[in-house]
Amino acid sequence: MEEFKTVRELYETCRFGDTFEKESISDVKLEGWIRTNRNNGSIGFIELNDGTYFRNAQLVYDKEVIKDFDVVSHFKTGAAIFITGKFVLTPEMKQPFEIQVKAIELEGDVSEDYPLQKKRHGFEFLREIAHLRPRTNTFNAVFRLRSVLSMAIHEFFQSQGFIYVHTPIITGNDAEGAGEAFSVVTSDKDPNAFFGKPASLSVSGQLQVEAFALAYRDVYTFGPTFRAEKSNTVRHASEFWMIEPEIAFADLEDDMDLIEDCVRFCIKYVMENCEEEMNFFNTMIDTTLIDRLTAVLNSHFARVTYTEAIEELQKAKANGHKFENENIYWGMDLQSEHERYITEQVIKGPVFLTDYPKDIKAFYMRLNDDGKTVAACDLLVPAVGELVGGSQREERYDVLLERMHELGMKTEGLEWYLDLRRYGGCKHAGFGIGFDRLLMYLTGMANIRDVQPFPRTPNNLKF
Amino acid sequence: MEEFKTVRELYETCRFGDTFEKESISDVKLEGWIRTNRNNGSIGFIELNDGTYFRNAQLVYDKEVIKDFDVVSHFKTGAAIFITGKFVLTPEMKQPFEIQVKAIELEGDVSEDYPLQKKRHGFEFLREIAHLRPRTNTFNAVFRLRSVLSMAIHEFFQSQGFIYVHTPIITGNDAEGAGEAFSVVTSDKDPNAFFGKPASLSVSGQLQVEAFALAYRDVYTFGPTFRAEKSNTVRHASEFWMIEPEIAFADLEDDMDLIEDCVRFCIKYVMENCEEEMNFFNTMIDTTLIDRLTAVLNSHFARVTYTEAIEELQKAKANGHKFENENIYWGMDLQSEHERYITEQVIKGPVFLTDYPKDIKAFYMRLNDDGKTVAACDLLVPAVGELVGGSQREERYDVLLERMHELGMKTEGLEWYLDLRRYGGCKHAGFGIGFDRLLMYLTGMANIRDVQPFPRTPNNLKF
Repeated sequence: MEEFKTVRELYETCRFGDTFEKESISDVKLEGWIRTNRNNGSIGFIELNDGTYFRNAQLVYDKEVIKDFDVVSHFKTGAAIFITGKFVLTPEMKQPFEIQVKAIELEGDVSEDYPLQKKRHGFEFLREIAHLRPRTNTFNAVFRLRSVLSMAIHEFFQSQGFIYVHTPIITGNDAEGAGEAFSVVTSDKDPNAFFGKPASLSVSGQLQVEAFALAYRDVYTFGPTFRAEKSNTVRHASEFWMIEPEIAFADLEDDMDLIEDCVRFCIKYVMENCEEEMNFFNTMIDTTLIDRLTAVLNSHFARVTYTEAIEELQKAKANGHKFENENIYWGMDLQSEHERYITEQVIKGPVFLTDYPKDIKAFYMRLNDDGKTVAACDLLVPAVGELVGGSQREERYDVLLERMHELGMKTEGLEWYLDLRRYGGCKHAGFGIGFDRLLMYLTGMANIRDVQPFPRTPNNLKF
Repeated sequence: MEEFKTVRELYETCRFGDTFEKESISDVKLEGWIRTNRNNGSIGFIELNDGTYFRNAQLVYDKEVIKDFDVVSHFKTGAAIFITGKFVLTPEMKQPFEIQVKAIELEGDVSEDYPLQKKRHGFEFLREIAHLRPRTNTFNAVFRLRSVLSMAIHEFFQSQGFIYVHTPIITGNDAEGAGEAFSVVTSDKDPNAFFGKPASLSVSGQLQVEAFALAYRDVYTFGPTFRAEKSNTVRHASEFWMIEPEIAFADLEDDMDLIEDCVRFCIKYVMENCEEEMNFFNTMIDTTLIDRLTAVLNSHFARVTYTEAIEELQKAKANGHKFENENIYWGMDLQSEHERYITEQVIKGPVFLTDYPKDIKAFYMRLNDDGKTVAACDLLVPAVGELVGGSQREERYDVLLERMHELGMKTEGLEWYLDLRRYGGCKHAGFGIGFDRLLMYLTGMANIRDVQPFPRTPNNLKF
């Protein structure tokens, strides 16, 4: 009996199945797309990808067996086909099995101008055909990892009882001051017409998620956020997904423990669930990838203060280390080169920098007793620099209000946020991970445009 | 030894633990918020909710044991406290355990004007304090279910190998014509300034997710979508989450099979994972809820054509059934009363209506051989009407192009979508579930504003 199978099922049976299971598969039906098709005049070979697995199934078709050998031998790369055939184990070959084709049908043909021919294409060219690039090895691997990593995030938090909160995308405040926000308007162009006040796209769900932490204790958001900055760098996009957990009855130490657990969990999860893809990245994209991630898995995550980091940087400079930005002083915002020096040269592993000067951090971060630093932390990792940023939140009403006044912030529209400090407030903390940057870190992909399905950046809205 | 515990852990040990496990818990530390606090002069009782579980822990404090009995007896509803106490099983009581308090500390006090006092509040009032309402029983249950249902969706699809795709929120086309879209602009107000063309908020990720189905076979989106319509109904919001799966090598029958599996899975999942909350909804919100959902679980999902449904409605009208909208003819768009008549009176259970007139459905739906209907389906369920809408997609390039011309649609900006039909296209299908409406269906909540953390509707952007 012929049975519908996916390529993934066949590989998994070869890999994990026992002899009986393997031998129980005989005649199969497969559907998928042709990656390559070649023949020697009497026998042909099709590499078939059906989307369920990174690797292809090898189809072998014989002039003696199938009708229309000549027609089939001209089936083109990219065509959708439907086949029936015999499943044959080939333990001595590179592929653990092949399919000896009995019948083959063209389900969907390919125009001559199909841009994904056999030759390799640059990532820049592939960005122009974002609707087709998931059919290439690299992007197939990237976007499968994106999906698996999303699931890792949900499993990590849900298994610990965290509540997932869909914080709003359209918002009336951009209070975090994290950057320029897009405005949301209706066709009549009056910015107040729809909501009665100006609306913008959220730059962070944190303020809203704090309200839920003070009801559920442990919560997280995971959704899209936006920046209207015209930065054309490999690490900036106008739209990207953020993970923002928030924990009540918790301080900065608890926060760092959670970040550490979360990062380790994600690394382990993709290594276990995307082995083929991770090996591919390690071979084709970044040959240091698996070593680098394994090192983090096995590392102690150091914790040093910003003040100690500044001292280390000044010492390095005094010893002749050249920084591009060599004006190093307490109070400065660290640049990527400084962060990388700390994690790569000083600590030689992942490190939390803590207790930053309040003037370079957000208004909601908890003021330390010294009156000049806040209970913030950034996780720095080798090869990348900052991966996660978190803080304990200011739970003291008066201190928060004073800080807002100091910064010239209006309390209007944030009364509800201040309320959280008046109504059973408690110490709480949280952090933010840029999901796309985490995915870059886990794949070795260098450009954020190459880890997003349809990236949005200035002048880029084709799809 | 005192041990940090959550209220959930204590309830679960009482429910699932063996005698040894239960007796191994002795002295515990708990943190949470006071729901009620009362006393008889020598013994006091605090209902403590720590956010981890729907039910409260009962704390008993004795004037003979704790210092400051008078102070503690004035701790107010909503205050955050930290306690240590002895865990005592009370199998003869309504609650399976109580905590005999040894020490209690105030972590965060409550202002006198705290709006959530003991008395019950209307949902309308609670919408005004959306930052506090998750602390009430109803909303605590609703938003926990929202989180659990989100996980159900991911587990359902991921366990079957579906790839989760983050389709873009900012989009250059509103091609589905599903409704009015919000525009996205930057501060200089020139609509072309940022992206080089006008941008709007996505009304659906379907077109983009089709591109991924033709690479991965089985995919889904789950993210926010937007409508700029000023509808002030209990079922409309300006921002809501949609689940949009798309499957390749699949037709309308496969699509309906998947919808059926998905709906059943979600019902089962929340019943198993939110038993307390579901019982609460069934008692306090909608006493038919669990019967209604159980009936769906055990039902055959009928499949009848739109044409048959029209005949049934005409027959009902002829037999004297009064419809508000009584002009019933082939080609009409069914109203909710018609849909409910079919599912409640004719089928008496869940039913797919299929093969709708092409003129009332979207351009991308596959034209049937009759030339006048399309391979679409709507799932109707008792008490609600339409819950899910799906269709097989038009995979034939020429037919799709002709349909777009017929509707006066421009192909500009959708060349990539048409490309999918030229480059190894295959039959494929998909559907959309409004996540918020599904949540309404599973909780019995009547207003979409009461299942969204911070709902966005016309003139409503406070948080």
